[in-house]
Amino acid sequence: MKLELISFKLCPFAQRAIISLNTHKLDFKMTYINPMNPPDWFKDISPTGQVPLLRVDDQVVFESLVITEFINEISNDSFHPSSSIQRANNRSWILFSSDILSDLFGIITGDEEKFNQSKIALFTKLEKIETIKSAAKFFNGNDFNMIDAAFAPIFMRLSWINEFTNNALSLDEFKHLSTWSKELLQVNVVKNSVVEGLDDAYYSNIEAREGYLSTLLID
Amino acid sequence: MKLELISFKLCPFAQRAIISLNTHKLDFKMTYINPMNPPDWFKDISPTGQVPLLRVDDQVVFESLVITEFINEISNDSFHPSSSIQRANNRSWILFSSDILSDLFGIITGDEEKFNQSKIALFTKLEKIETIKSAAKFFNGNDFNMIDAAFAPIFMRLSWINEFTNNALSLDEFKHLSTWSKELLQVNVVKNSVVEGLDDAYYSNIEAREGYLSTLLID
Repeated sequence: MKLELISFKLCPFAQRAIISLNTHKLDFKMTYINPMNPPDWFKDISPTGQVPLLRVDDQVVFESLVITEFINEISNDSFHPSSSIQRANNRSWILFSSDILSDLFGIITGDEEKFNQSKIALFTKLEKIETIKSAAKFFNGNDFNMIDAAFAPIFMRLSWINEFTNNALSLDEFKHLSTWSKELLQVNVVKNSVVEGLDDAYYSNIEAREGYLSTLLID
Repeated sequence: MKLELISFKLCPFAQRAIISLNTHKLDFKMTYINPMNPPDWFKDISPTGQVPLLRVDDQVVFESLVITEFINEISNDSFHPSSSIQRANNRSWILFSSDILSDLFGIITGDEEKFNQSKIALFTKLEKIETIKSAAKFFNGNDFNMIDAAFAPIFMRLSWINEFTNNALSLDEFKHLSTWSKELLQVNVVKNSVVEGLDDAYYSNIEAREGYLSTLLID
């Protein structure tokens, strides 16, 4: 089975797939495209025009949850919990977390009003996750699971933004999330899921968007 | 395992869960709430405030794809295809189809401009599905699968709208989708997935929204 992941370098959804592929030690080809000007071959095979897209031989899989479930299914070791209700619970929160990435988009691109709205929306969601998150290292305990792969790109971006600003999105009020974030960002498959210098690219992206967040950047 | 599905009567996402529960012959309690004024107990257990919600003993599962995957996993017979790549393909298109329900919302509630935009968005998606849909009875062939349960509420609503208007959303240009829709709407678990008179309630809902679609209704 030949696997090719198609995305752009800053895409948090693709990062979930990369973490999953590397967790399961699967070989894959990584292909980057320019999302502002995608090549014709991409338009031909993508039903939604969105990344990430996983090409599996001559077929395509899209939507990051579906891609990570597929990666998990073709692997020997599942990185989902073994109980069906716990798996369902994890999947519910994975889909929930995707909306956090929309909030982050508003935070990066919005004017002051939009920034504040998006920040409130983000923190409302984080508060909900804080209430259901245990004090364990990862979401379900000591094992790194699919839900951890889904949240890692979010915490990585929050940590970058906090580093680039005077903690504009500080997680300090969320005890369990702070621990979880710290643990996740130390995991090798998470650290190795981004190309070198992606934090700088993220900084430049915030600058280039010229939203309210760019005025909070410290040099 | 005690199952309780919480939703409101017109919810197409809940209908997917009902079709899945009935396909697998699972006992469940159906609880309807008023989405405009949800009871406090619902607010307490729902992380998103959205329906459907599946209560499983003292835990909750949300997001219709996650609910139907859970129902499938706790059942003896899977109603997913057996090949992992085909399952992934089906799940990709199930998530794709959820955006169709957003288009339908715009069609029902929008003014003429919004109606036309939403109709174009809807037909663009239908066209994509038409190109990948085979001439088979259901999505994958002769077996009624999870993806059929996901699309049935969409085709039921399109068929109601066409019946209530002069075929405002006619599927005639889509040969495969027309066949698929006709087949789906004859399946017993699909027919029995809505309460009696729901078509009338849908008509009244279109009227009450006073969008452009309401001006196309024939008595």
